[in-house]
Amino acid sequence: MSDKIGLFTGSFDPLTNGHLDVIKRASQLFDVLYVGVFVNPHKEGLLASSERKRLIEEVVADMPTVQVLVAQDQLVVDVAREIGASYLVRGLRNGMDLEYESSFDFYNRELAPQLETIYLLAKPEYKFVSSSQVRELLQFHQDIRPYVPEIISKELQKNEKK
Amino acid sequence: MSDKIGLFTGSFDPLTNGHLDVIKRASQLFDVLYVGVFVNPHKEGLLASSERKRLIEEVVADMPTVQVLVAQDQLVVDVAREIGASYLVRGLRNGMDLEYESSFDFYNRELAPQLETIYLLAKPEYKFVSSSQVRELLQFHQDIRPYVPEIISKELQKNEKK
Amino acid sequence: MSDKIGLFTGSFDPLTNGHLDVIKRASQLFDVLYVGVFVNPHKEGLLASSERKRLIEEVVADMPTVQVLVAQDQLVVDVAREIGASYLVRGLRNGMDLEYESSFDFYNRELAPQLETIYLLAKPEYKFVSSSQVRELLQFHQDIRPYVPEIISKELQKNEKK
Amino acid sequence: MSDKIGLFTGSFDPLTNGHLDVIKRASQLFDVLYVGVFVNPHKEGLLASSERKRLIEEVVADMPTVQVLVAQDQLVVDVAREIGASYLVRGLRNGMDLEYESSFDFYNRELAPQLETIYLLAKPEYKFVSSSQVRELLQFHQDIRPYVPEIISKELQKNEKK
Amino acid sequence: MSDKIGLFTGSFDPLTNGHLDVIKRASQLFDVLYVGVFVNPHKEGLLASSERKRLIEEVVADMPTVQVLVAQDQLVVDVAREIGASYLVRGLRNGMDLEYESSFDFYNRELAPQLETIYLLAKPEYKFVSSSQVRELLQFHQDIRPYVPEIISKELQKNEKK
Amino acid sequence: MSDKIGLFTGSFDPLTNGHLDVIKRASQLFDVLYVGVFVNPHKEGLLASSERKRLIEEVVADMPTVQVLVAQDQLVVDVAREIGASYLVRGLRNGMDLEYESSFDFYNRELAPQLETIYLLAKPEYKFVSSSQVRELLQFHQDIRPYVPEIISKELQKNEKK
Repeated sequence: MSDKIGLFTGSFDPLTNGHLDVIKRASQLFDVLYVGVFVNPHKEGLLASSERKRLIEEVVADMPTVQVLVAQDQLVVDVAREIGASYLVRGLRNGMDLEYESSFDFYNRELAPQLETIYLLAKPEYKFVSSSQVRELLQFHQDIRPYVPEIISKELQKNEKK
Repeated sequence: MSDKIGLFTGSFDPLTNGHLDVIKRASQLFDVLYVGVFVNPHKEGLLASSERKRLIEEVVADMPTVQVLVAQDQLVVDVAREIGASYLVRGLRNGMDLEYESSFDFYNRELAPQLETIYLLAKPEYKFVSSSQVRELLQFHQDIRPYVPEIISKELQKNEKK
Repeated sequence: MSDKIGLFTGSFDPLTNGHLDVIKRASQLFDVLYVGVFVNPHKEGLLASSERKRLIEEVVADMPTVQVLVAQDQLVVDVAREIGASYLVRGLRNGMDLEYESSFDFYNRELAPQLETIYLLAKPEYKFVSSSQVRELLQFHQDIRPYVPEIISKELQKNEKK
Repeated sequence: MSDKIGLFTGSFDPLTNGHLDVIKRASQLFDVLYVGVFVNPHKEGLLASSERKRLIEEVVADMPTVQVLVAQDQLVVDVAREIGASYLVRGLRNGMDLEYESSFDFYNRELAPQLETIYLLAKPEYKFVSSSQVRELLQFHQDIRPYVPEIISKELQKNEKK
Repeated sequence: MSDKIGLFTGSFDPLTNGHLDVIKRASQLFDVLYVGVFVNPHKEGLLASSERKRLIEEVVADMPTVQVLVAQDQLVVDVAREIGASYLVRGLRNGMDLEYESSFDFYNRELAPQLETIYLLAKPEYKFVSSSQVRELLQFHQDIRPYVPEIISKELQKNEKK
Repeated sequence: MSDKIGLFTGSFDPLTNGHLDVIKRASQLFDVLYVGVFVNPHKEGLLASSERKRLIEEVVADMPTVQVLVAQDQLVVDVAREIGASYLVRGLRNGMDLEYESSFDFYNRELAPQLETIYLLAKPEYKFVSSSQVRELLQFHQDIRPYVPEIISKELQKNEKK
């Protein structure tokens, strides 16, 4: 029987504790779980894509079945095909997420009918944690340690002090 | 490595094509997927619980990893523990489902922290298909064949003719 | 060209000012607009179906293209067929209405593909006006005159005094 | 300047930690905060209204500005008038609550234009805590101590052992 | 009796099968249905407004009561007045649409009290079809034929090959 | 007992009748209510922040307990701390507001646990009134008098004529 391969995508600018919780929970389900850093080349981010990848790799260093990749100008379904993933993994936080996800699910099914998407609900403590909120807290020089892994808060607060 | 066991619960009175689609899609993820017929003993149903079980078993006869059980006056988390399931499987149709599921997810996590719940979105064509609608169509003597597996429509329309 | 016939259904127990506003606005669109009083025979209402019909007829007495009918144990699509209606008319008040209506729309289209449904949004002042709220106000002996046509408030408050 | 009096109503069958959190937070705003136990005489509850009142009084014994009352077959606005309350206090948990509250707010404003309603958002940890869930947990003999004040869990689990 | 004239507006960049379905269904209701291409002059589009108009005219060539117009820097209510339309036609896809539409409806009623707006629910198969999704698919060189009329997919894929 | 101080924030570009209604209702609850004009320095507004402040001061001239301040590049919680406010005041219009507010509430509680937030529901007549709609109406040379205080409509329509 072939390996079960999953793909969890996002911009991860930066990875939050909410993302990490989804990765931990989803990694149990698959033989290999890819974390796919999808970069919008037309939008300047907080972290370069190579930095995002390196930081996530450090964070998941003790999770042997988790691997990190970077994608640019590619559809999620095409990346899934390349790496042999049969499952997409998505986190759900609220009803607005659900409207967006329903559309995403529809088009993915149109483009890649064999690709299945599974959803995990965000735990209540992560329901409001998002990369954009972390970036906003940073901009106002607030403590981001409660919302991101330690490796990431150190890196981001190091940048800030420069 | 131990088997991955999933549990998909419902009242299945009757099982619909939407339920069956979730079962097919989820069965790929697990070594064994249990379909748990949860019966509310204080509510008279259309079908007896033993009939529901028998019909689902016929419908999934060609899916060797799917098994059917009946539970009464039991919590979902307790049944999961008994059968060794590490995953609950749930279908999501809309935002109202999500509010309900968020609460269900919260209490299950409180009662059984190791039990994970995964969600599959209903395909658009099954978004409005529900057991209660099928029962209402039957009551008005309408054709239910587009919404339930053939085995079930035959049984229910046989009952109707009596 | 054949007549454009519309059907606006509800339990109308009692008709509210919100219902009346939909009737007035919809009646402009059709050659004949039927107001269909759909009665659930298993639920005791405030007003008998014949009273509901009589009261609505009085309220719409100056609207020559509006007619009132009573239906019991019938599907809306079957009544539409009998009276030759090509359009159902529905009022929309909020997002929960929309979830319900989407399902209703789906099944009506399955059962009667040629029947079209049009929606009118409730005006803000009628957004919270409903028959069930009127019944609750009556039960607490409150003034219902702001929410129902005068003919109906008189009738209901007359009943109350008995 | 006259006293600021608030009224927080509910069925409190039983009072939960979520209710208690709203009471604590709201009591800071008012000179006197009444907790109004509103009883539906047509519905059998878990606890008699006198028991609910006595238990809440024990729970709030160290909050000198909080008082408890019982109301039956009365509108909230009428009780507010009797006790001289100028403010209603409500907790909000989610979007479905909001639809309900918007209607409640509308009618209260119609019946008592001078009465103002203020809302507090439930903290994430109480978002899923409700009296009905506590009753369901009790029915399945589960531990309710994380969700209700200790005085109440002792009383309810004492009842259970009888 | 004067003609019943309807107006269905949008940016139609490009027209989708979902738009076309609304046009077909709505055209039955009116003597003349105008499709109004509303252009935001501050936003560069995929297609010039004159191209959008020409393509829609080709698509509706067999629908004699449908006419196409272009508007720029004009309010919908003003265009409706100019063409003598008594009805606006809108498609509804989901709860977020409804919030937006409720506001649009409110202001149109303020600005033009005699103008009525009717809504049609998108069929499930068109619920996720939108101009912005079509543009995104094009950008990723995906097949757009399932989502737009043939005339339009030919034109857009011709452009792409240049 | 120390003063009860509240803070109601927004961009108020311009202040609407909906904002003014919240200010009037909230000012009853506090010894002092600050209206905080929060300015995004990266976004060009309709009115300069000093003009917004001056206009609001004129509008609330007869409300002695209401004061106006301007903040730029500051977190709401920091401004609250500076002025000694123990309460934030927010208006709620709909379910989308609620998702946003839940997140805002979460972060404020993290950053300033003692700061309480109270919500007032927008009255139905103000549910669709927003600064952005007023700006859009102005842009189309429509009458804004129904939506903003007279002082503000005079100022804005004076600007327009220049």
